[in-house]
Amino acid sequence: MKAEIIAVGTELLLGQIVNSNAQFLSTELAALGIDVYFQTVVGDNSNRLQQAIEIARSRADLILFTGGIGPTEDDLTKDALAAALGRGLHIDTLAMDHVQRFFDARKIVMTENNRKQALIIEGTTPLPNEIGLAVGVALAHEDKYYIVLPGPPREMKPMFTDKAKPWLLQHALTDEMPIYSKMLKFAGIGESLLEDKLIDLIRNQTDPTIAPYAKEGEVTVRISTKAPSEHDALKKLDVLEKQIKDILPEHMYANIDVPLEQLIVDWMADAGLTLSAAESCTGGLLMESITNIPGSASMFAGGIVCYSNDIKKKLLNVPSDFLEGTNAPGAVSREVAEVLAEQVRMIADSDFGLSVTGVAGPGYSERKPVGLVFIGIAERNRKTEVFELNLQGTRENIRLRSVKALLYRLWRRLEERQVETPLEGSDL
Amino acid sequence: MKAEIIAVGTELLLGQIVNSNAQFLSTELAALGIDVYFQTVVGDNSNRLQQAIEIARSRADLILFTGGIGPTEDDLTKDALAAALGRGLHIDTLAMDHVQRFFDARKIVMTENNRKQALIIEGTTPLPNEIGLAVGVALAHEDKYYIVLPGPPREMKPMFTDKAKPWLLQHALTDEMPIYSKMLKFAGIGESLLEDKLIDLIRNQTDPTIAPYAKEGEVTVRISTKAPSEHDALKKLDVLEKQIKDILPEHMYANIDVPLEQLIVDWMADAGLTLSAAESCTGGLLMESITNIPGSASMFAGGIVCYSNDIKKKLLNVPSDFLEGTNAPGAVSREVAEVLAEQVRMIADSDFGLSVTGVAGPGYSERKPVGLVFIGIAERNRKTEVFELNLQGTRENIRLRSVKALLYRLWRRLEERQVETPLEGSDL
Repeated sequence: MKAEIIAVGTELLLGQIVNSNAQFLSTELAALGIDVYFQTVVGDNSNRLQQAIEIARSRADLILFTGGIGPTEDDLTKDALAAALGRGLHIDTLAMDHVQRFFDARKIVMTENNRKQALIIEGTTPLPNEIGLAVGVALAHEDKYYIVLPGPPREMKPMFTDKAKPWLLQHALTDEMPIYSKMLKFAGIGESLLEDKLIDLIRNQTDPTIAPYAKEGEVTVRISTKAPSEHDALKKLDVLEKQIKDILPEHMYANIDVPLEQLIVDWMADAGLTLSAAESCTGGLLMESITNIPGSASMFAGGIVCYSNDIKKKLLNVPSDFLEGTNAPGAVSREVAEVLAEQVRMIADSDFGLSVTGVAGPGYSERKPVGLVFIGIAERNRKTEVFELNLQGTRENIRLRSVKALLYRLWRRLEERQVETPLEGSDL
Repeated sequence: MKAEIIAVGTELLLGQIVNSNAQFLSTELAALGIDVYFQTVVGDNSNRLQQAIEIARSRADLILFTGGIGPTEDDLTKDALAAALGRGLHIDTLAMDHVQRFFDARKIVMTENNRKQALIIEGTTPLPNEIGLAVGVALAHEDKYYIVLPGPPREMKPMFTDKAKPWLLQHALTDEMPIYSKMLKFAGIGESLLEDKLIDLIRNQTDPTIAPYAKEGEVTVRISTKAPSEHDALKKLDVLEKQIKDILPEHMYANIDVPLEQLIVDWMADAGLTLSAAESCTGGLLMESITNIPGSASMFAGGIVCYSNDIKKKLLNVPSDFLEGTNAPGAVSREVAEVLAEQVRMIADSDFGLSVTGVAGPGYSERKPVGLVFIGIAERNRKTEVFELNLQGTRENIRLRSVKALLYRLWRRLEERQVETPLEGSDL
């Protein structure tokens, strides 16, 4: 089944709000095995809305509308759809009672335009609005299905989930097989290299399908299949997941949609391991991303943002002759990254200590190029590791990629450790 | 001029990401006086993309594409547009150099698919990509204008602002009376209260227009007018700006689009003032937002993320009897916020010291409610101020709002100081 989502509202076309309704409905429809082929946004304009309806009817089996069903003059969705289908509109008694009760309860006189919110198209199923006032509509017409939902997300979402979805399952989806997906998560590898490594699998994909996509510093691969049951789907998905993992064992860190820092926090908390950090060029971004995870308090002790050389010396005991003098390695160096990681680990008395020092730009410093970054990992009773990064991009990119690289290296270290002494409660 | 935005990407149709690009471009086009009549989302499918292009050509004068110009097999936007216009594609030499340099700098062998990112349509203006690799395209064809931009917002936004917008102004918008806008920025006030205060101005707006909008923790008011010259526009805009500032003098911090932390960094750097911070519940977010500003190195010394009580005691000399025992005020208290701010200021020997301690949730701690936060400002030779916040929202909201509240209080303090001894080089 092919679907199209039409969001109606001039505020979307002015950029005043983002079309989060389309995202919500797309996710929901994908989970039902319905292919969304187009999303359209059109303003509160009768001609253009009718034009959008005509186009959608020509290319979709199911059309979902959001917005344009409120009380004002520019709420036109039901009128336009009724006109397109050659049907009339009438007041739904139950919906009208609901609107009237709302005003009665507030002891406000209902203005006449609010009657509009109780309108439904003739011969259709009203979708009650539990949160707001405007009633929704579901109908089948000449082998096509139409769903009309309100614009405000907090009204639209429950109406879809509780009213429209059951209607769809009963009327439109009797023959379809549901779609099942898994999200495979990767770190320490870019999208194009990942795709290059998986190119044979991607070229030959039929069922399950493989879809890689990248967000800043992370790559996700969604694998999906249609199947009569979850059990059947998982049989197919697990085989493909294993093939992919075998190609990229050092980069695939999860088979559910979690950020890498979540995995690290959970693993370390479960294993009773603690962490601290000393950040120079990233200025707190690393610690912020870790402490953003609920539960991090049990594994993250704290750390130091050592932006100035004074703080590096005073709080982290970096020797002056590492920082000053013509032959000194300088703040952005392998040597300083090592001291920072080791010292913060000792000060916090934690199991692991992380460090970042580098040139985030825009200007260079210490005559070193923008993008040169050293990251360090100190561990109790283990030799400290330092990695050199040569990053590109804006100041923000370089900071973010430094953090992602450090999280990746820490994850690798925890993985190795896990092979030695398996952690309890871990999934991988 | 009528415009349509076509976002290309199956990930949008699967609901994996929200179409924030359409929102950004709609806002930008509205500011240029261009009417966006439709936004369309289509998947990585050649037929359907060509179909979307045909429809857009029939109803718009300007078509902007985002996405589908990366290195992979399902990046089809340029191919589809070239086919629709009956033009060829060729490698742009400069763009190819850019791609090659990227790989050379990383000492990685470029895979063949990356050449695709340097493709442009024949007879068009390449739009260089300063952040990523894929080159954009601008072209006029049979009285219509076409702009092709990358999908990732951090590449798309600067390419639009720095490359496509100037091209549009020069080629497509020569007859229009330009729109001039000013962005007024507010802190320490929510959108609905701000709107309430400005309601008479907003209700009576004709020219200039007033459009408030809120992003997490910040409110912006855009005032706009069409005028034959910037001089004429500014005469009108300045009058309205002064009216607004007179209504909200303690909240309007800038008349250009800068974040508050930018203003603080610039002011303090100009005045030779230095800053440090001690963060508990915000875990580095405050320091991260300050160090994200280029130039912060000259005013920000560094600081401490004191997530655990041990670190609070060990590094920031918080007395044990503040933290432990049945009658202790506890880590989330006015007393501890005061010590943290004063101690970090002394340790870093900075002019100002900031602190945050609170319950970000999801669970409560110390039997204190989620959202209770104390923020402190210590200053050399001045009494330390502590403010109590009672915030609502998710963990992420509470952390962000704590940081915004602290920046707001610091700005107010700097403003007072400025009245006493005016800082050089400041605009307000």
